[in-house]
Amino acid sequence: MSDLRIGIIGCGAIGQDHVKRINEKVQGATVTGIFEINEKVSRSLGESFGVNVFSSGEQLIESSEVDAVVVSSSDETHARYVLKAIEAKKFVFCEKPLTPKSTDGRHILDAEIAGGKQLVQVGFMRRYDPGYRAVRTLLQSGSYGSPLVLHCSHRNAAIPGFTTPMAIQSSASHEIDICRWLLGEEYVSCEVLMAKNSRHSGSDLHDPQFLILRTESGILITVEIFINCQYGYDINCEVVCEDGIVSLPSPPEVLVKNNGKKASAISSDWKARFKEAYEVEFQEWVSAVKQGRVGGPSTWDGYITAVVTEALSQARDTGERVPISHMECPDFYRKK
Amino acid sequence: MSDLRIGIIGCGAIGQDHVKRINEKVQGATVTGIFEINEKVSRSLGESFGVNVFSSGEQLIESSEVDAVVVSSSDETHARYVLKAIEAKKFVFCEKPLTPKSTDGRHILDAEIAGGKQLVQVGFMRRYDPGYRAVRTLLQSGSYGSPLVLHCSHRNAAIPGFTTPMAIQSSASHEIDICRWLLGEEYVSCEVLMAKNSRHSGSDLHDPQFLILRTESGILITVEIFINCQYGYDINCEVVCEDGIVSLPSPPEVLVKNNGKKASAISSDWKARFKEAYEVEFQEWVSAVKQGRVGGPSTWDGYITAVVTEALSQARDTGERVPISHMECPDFYRKK
Amino acid sequence: MSDLRIGIIGCGAIGQDHVKRINEKVQGATVTGIFEINEKVSRSLGESFGVNVFSSGEQLIESSEVDAVVVSSSDETHARYVLKAIEAKKFVFCEKPLTPKSTDGRHILDAEIAGGKQLVQVGFMRRYDPGYRAVRTLLQSGSYGSPLVLHCSHRNAAIPGFTTPMAIQSSASHEIDICRWLLGEEYVSCEVLMAKNSRHSGSDLHDPQFLILRTESGILITVEIFINCQYGYDINCEVVCEDGIVSLPSPPEVLVKNNGKKASAISSDWKARFKEAYEVEFQEWVSAVKQGRVGGPSTWDGYITAVVTEALSQARDTGERVPISHMECPDFYRKK
Amino acid sequence: MSDLRIGIIGCGAIGQDHVKRINEKVQGATVTGIFEINEKVSRSLGESFGVNVFSSGEQLIESSEVDAVVVSSSDETHARYVLKAIEAKKFVFCEKPLTPKSTDGRHILDAEIAGGKQLVQVGFMRRYDPGYRAVRTLLQSGSYGSPLVLHCSHRNAAIPGFTTPMAIQSSASHEIDICRWLLGEEYVSCEVLMAKNSRHSGSDLHDPQFLILRTESGILITVEIFINCQYGYDINCEVVCEDGIVSLPSPPEVLVKNNGKKASAISSDWKARFKEAYEVEFQEWVSAVKQGRVGGPSTWDGYITAVVTEALSQARDTGERVPISHMECPDFYRKK
Repeated sequence: MSDLRIGIIGCGAIGQDHVKRINEKVQGATVTGIFEINEKVSRSLGESFGVNVFSSGEQLIESSEVDAVVVSSSDETHARYVLKAIEAKKFVFCEKPLTPKSTDGRHILDAEIAGGKQLVQVGFMRRYDPGYRAVRTLLQSGSYGSPLVLHCSHRNAAIPGFTTPMAIQSSASHEIDICRWLLGEEYVSCEVLMAKNSRHSGSDLHDPQFLILRTESGILITVEIFINCQYGYDINCEVVCEDGIVSLPSPPEVLVKNNGKKASAISSDWKARFKEAYEVEFQEWVSAVKQGRVGGPSTWDGYITAVVTEALSQARDTGERVPISHMECPDFYRKK
Repeated sequence: MSDLRIGIIGCGAIGQDHVKRINEKVQGATVTGIFEINEKVSRSLGESFGVNVFSSGEQLIESSEVDAVVVSSSDETHARYVLKAIEAKKFVFCEKPLTPKSTDGRHILDAEIAGGKQLVQVGFMRRYDPGYRAVRTLLQSGSYGSPLVLHCSHRNAAIPGFTTPMAIQSSASHEIDICRWLLGEEYVSCEVLMAKNSRHSGSDLHDPQFLILRTESGILITVEIFINCQYGYDINCEVVCEDGIVSLPSPPEVLVKNNGKKASAISSDWKARFKEAYEVEFQEWVSAVKQGRVGGPSTWDGYITAVVTEALSQARDTGERVPISHMECPDFYRKK
Repeated sequence: MSDLRIGIIGCGAIGQDHVKRINEKVQGATVTGIFEINEKVSRSLGESFGVNVFSSGEQLIESSEVDAVVVSSSDETHARYVLKAIEAKKFVFCEKPLTPKSTDGRHILDAEIAGGKQLVQVGFMRRYDPGYRAVRTLLQSGSYGSPLVLHCSHRNAAIPGFTTPMAIQSSASHEIDICRWLLGEEYVSCEVLMAKNSRHSGSDLHDPQFLILRTESGILITVEIFINCQYGYDINCEVVCEDGIVSLPSPPEVLVKNNGKKASAISSDWKARFKEAYEVEFQEWVSAVKQGRVGGPSTWDGYITAVVTEALSQARDTGERVPISHMECPDFYRKK
Repeated sequence: MSDLRIGIIGCGAIGQDHVKRINEKVQGATVTGIFEINEKVSRSLGESFGVNVFSSGEQLIESSEVDAVVVSSSDETHARYVLKAIEAKKFVFCEKPLTPKSTDGRHILDAEIAGGKQLVQVGFMRRYDPGYRAVRTLLQSGSYGSPLVLHCSHRNAAIPGFTTPMAIQSSASHEIDICRWLLGEEYVSCEVLMAKNSRHSGSDLHDPQFLILRTESGILITVEIFINCQYGYDINCEVVCEDGIVSLPSPPEVLVKNNGKKASAISSDWKARFKEAYEVEFQEWVSAVKQGRVGGPSTWDGYITAVVTEALSQARDTGERVPISHMECPDFYRKK
């Protein structure tokens, strides 16, 4: 079977990684075109990758040389390109978030359902991480009873220019998605507490922040978001169940004993942390698309994340516990 | 110097441990008398330990054969005996809680101040645990910047007969004390969330519970209390600071590799977990008393715990965030 | 660039894995032909993989439809096929061991040098494991001074039908190669000690065995080979240096706390343990071959392993310390 | 019961620790007299501890104010004092080694048997370490089948003035004793290999050294002795059994995440490592002596260590495997 021809919209850091990943790691797919708003970058990438450079995302989507689309442009443009891809009846992989606005999420749901075929996958790569997958398998095994509490922490060494809202919109969206995927339940309420502010935060950021989510069956989820923890990129998830605790493993690192201690490295490189997850994600997406279907996180998952993000933002602004309400999941998105 | 003669009021499980501990592990002290409400137990202990059996706590306190008193009777009797010991101008070690009621705490504060001499120590043994002491030393070293968040979990394998209020009154009191000791700050507000209820909870207990405390400088403290976690007695404390994370160590255990896994034991025995702490606590108390002073947790610490316990109980009952207010710390109790 | 067309000789368990790996994981290569001595297996594989089935390894090597050859047939046939591939001037990847006999190793060295071009790579996949690579990087960083002792253990849960000689010939060959690669030194002597024999050993196997190797500069290497350790596949390597200890990490596994312990799994699946190493190995081999060169373990490495294997076998049979002597490394194989 | 009155011969660093330990940590015993060869030290200690200062070890032993004797003088004087104590029919605790010479060990055995009562205990404190005790309990549980190999490492950060023979005579004597205690078997042969010499070794020391011991039933024991490992005092013991591996735990330490790594301290303080073991050792010795018996390592254990030390020294000097032969254990020393 010939390679799936992929066009990529938005070739900033992550977009360029996707080009390389698809060309060098993924079987059965080739990047054949790109669109990048920054023309200088655009031209240079076109040459170095040897691909078509389109003059707009829309043109790329419509091109007969593009079978499927990857959207990794700036967040607020996602919805537009995804809707266009649905219109063009092409499979589209959209980096998370699908959209920052739940109303846009509704539009995409409506359009996709109207088109009659599931075409959209959202880039929640953690679902492809072997660690999270192993945790989920154990939870579903039934050996540990019902989950009761999840303690998550999501820490970056330092991100310059980060603002208070981004902690929820950008960072926490990973936990919003992965926890409901681990538990198979939706959220019903949320709360946000500011921790004591780190002196490394910068003037536009309150850091760390502490989020609390509650699911339909009453499971409590806590998420510490710490953007400037200084020491490394560190993702933790401890699931407290009725009959035991299950914890996400950390990446393997050489153990060194020297200078009065034993130590192992914690990398600051968040891309490296989920490198394998990204590769499996794209490989599974390509393989599914070649079979004419979507296997990963859907428009529904993107919509829910937008709803929860809005509720959390409101909880942060008001200091109140905020109920989370969303439409019922359309049959269209239910796993048969 | 001759041995300090100690009388123990209340010889249930923990009281009997204290008798053995003082006689077998602590230098410079001997148990010379006991009072135990259960007469049968009382007589049998008197014989097996070879000590005087008093017919009331008051009699024991007043006896010329008792230099100092240990109170390990039921919680609601603590205040009475402590007040009596203050009246008798004898040093008194009171098991935690000093009292469940903050008003009683005020009475004891007033009496002790009126007597002009500090006589009371409260049994918060975790302050003597080498792990907590090491954490505190690191925090005070300044190497990690300011603490911002503390994540605590306090899990028991199973406690039959436990009720919902006891999770705060009995279990959480340890965290209430140890966190303010680690941080050197008082609390300003609290909140209690019920997690999903474990099927192992029993009808009178909601388990686990999740407590949130906030300190004067804004540090956020979270405490998961899980009475029936099934797997063992497991105490965790992770202090998230501006420049690093400091975590309480677990007890050392043999690592075994067999049957497809590597594993180490988690004991269910909470007394064994803090055995060294108890011994150091009593040794330091005896040594200080022989020097005519109190070195450990004071009436002030017992009063604050009662205040916070009441606020947490109110937060649990109302579902609201509750401010914590207490009198200012009298000079009498400030470390010079 | 078009795909490298690969023919695979020997399609037992590992050979079939290679077919799948090359077709599904490796970029730029396709398996186009196989030869397998078992005709029934041969036909069935030809159909299921959709590849040519050759009637002999020689025919496969000579075929114009095969650009490069993978040899994964039984050990004693390796030398014959490798020599044939050299004759045909085709790149050949030979599963370890290149040959059990050092004299055959000399023949291959001679033939390859006579041909004037390096064509042979030997399948020591551990050199591609991220853990071993990280250990080597740290050792070469100079931060830990000179290595002084290496403690290795190589344990399998159970291998039915294993014999005493195979512990050295089959299992230890991995450590023979990886330790000299980590250290950049050759061996000068060896010794073999039988540990107490496990009751799980079976009649033809003494298990575990304990090997001692000494390098040119005096570094001591110990290797415990334990074929029936029961609990899992467990590979350890601790490098004791002048200024610190560097240890190979174990694979990441979910940590579970339940039933009175905390535990993480140790898999028995040795293929899974080095899955990533195998993939990187083949990808790097294919990429290098397409550039007309060999980048990995060479005929020289295969020859040395045969020499050391023979010395260890003699040490085992005699109970003596045995010197290890080999020809000097030809310039042809020295990294420029 | 009145306190056991203890005289201590030899008040160097470890002797002074013993004085403090007995007076401050051990129940039922008081140091009443000392003898120290260095007169200045002697006088000053006598004053600061408030004890009698004897003018010779013999005088101390014979004094009616001394019930039991602790010998912590220089190694070569041990036998003399122990023999004297046996003559005086007093219980004597002798720091390890009982004697460097197996012939002296024989003399002590003969004298003690002739006296008709076991009086001597040797200071192998590791037998009282909770970690080693837990390992032994697991081995004796039968859950792991027979032990087959023991891997030990014994590392000090740095010891100035150490010489090559001391690695066996002083350091390894701990492993010689603890391994036979863990296994309940005697040794039959030994071998010593010099590792590559560390640049930190100094001119009189080859460091690290690697010892191999074999027991009666064929169990293989390896011991890495590394006097100048730089990073800390680190004692490891991994017991490879037929059905699993059992490993000595490391001391608990705070886990810190900062500066790109997670780390915990390894102390250089060997006294702190076995502090609890020392306390339990002396407490159990005092308690047993007050009951008129010896409960710990006996003259037999001290004799065996001397025999094995001599064999290892010969193995080191000759480079050969050396058989270990000793007299049969007299019934006098067999546990009934």
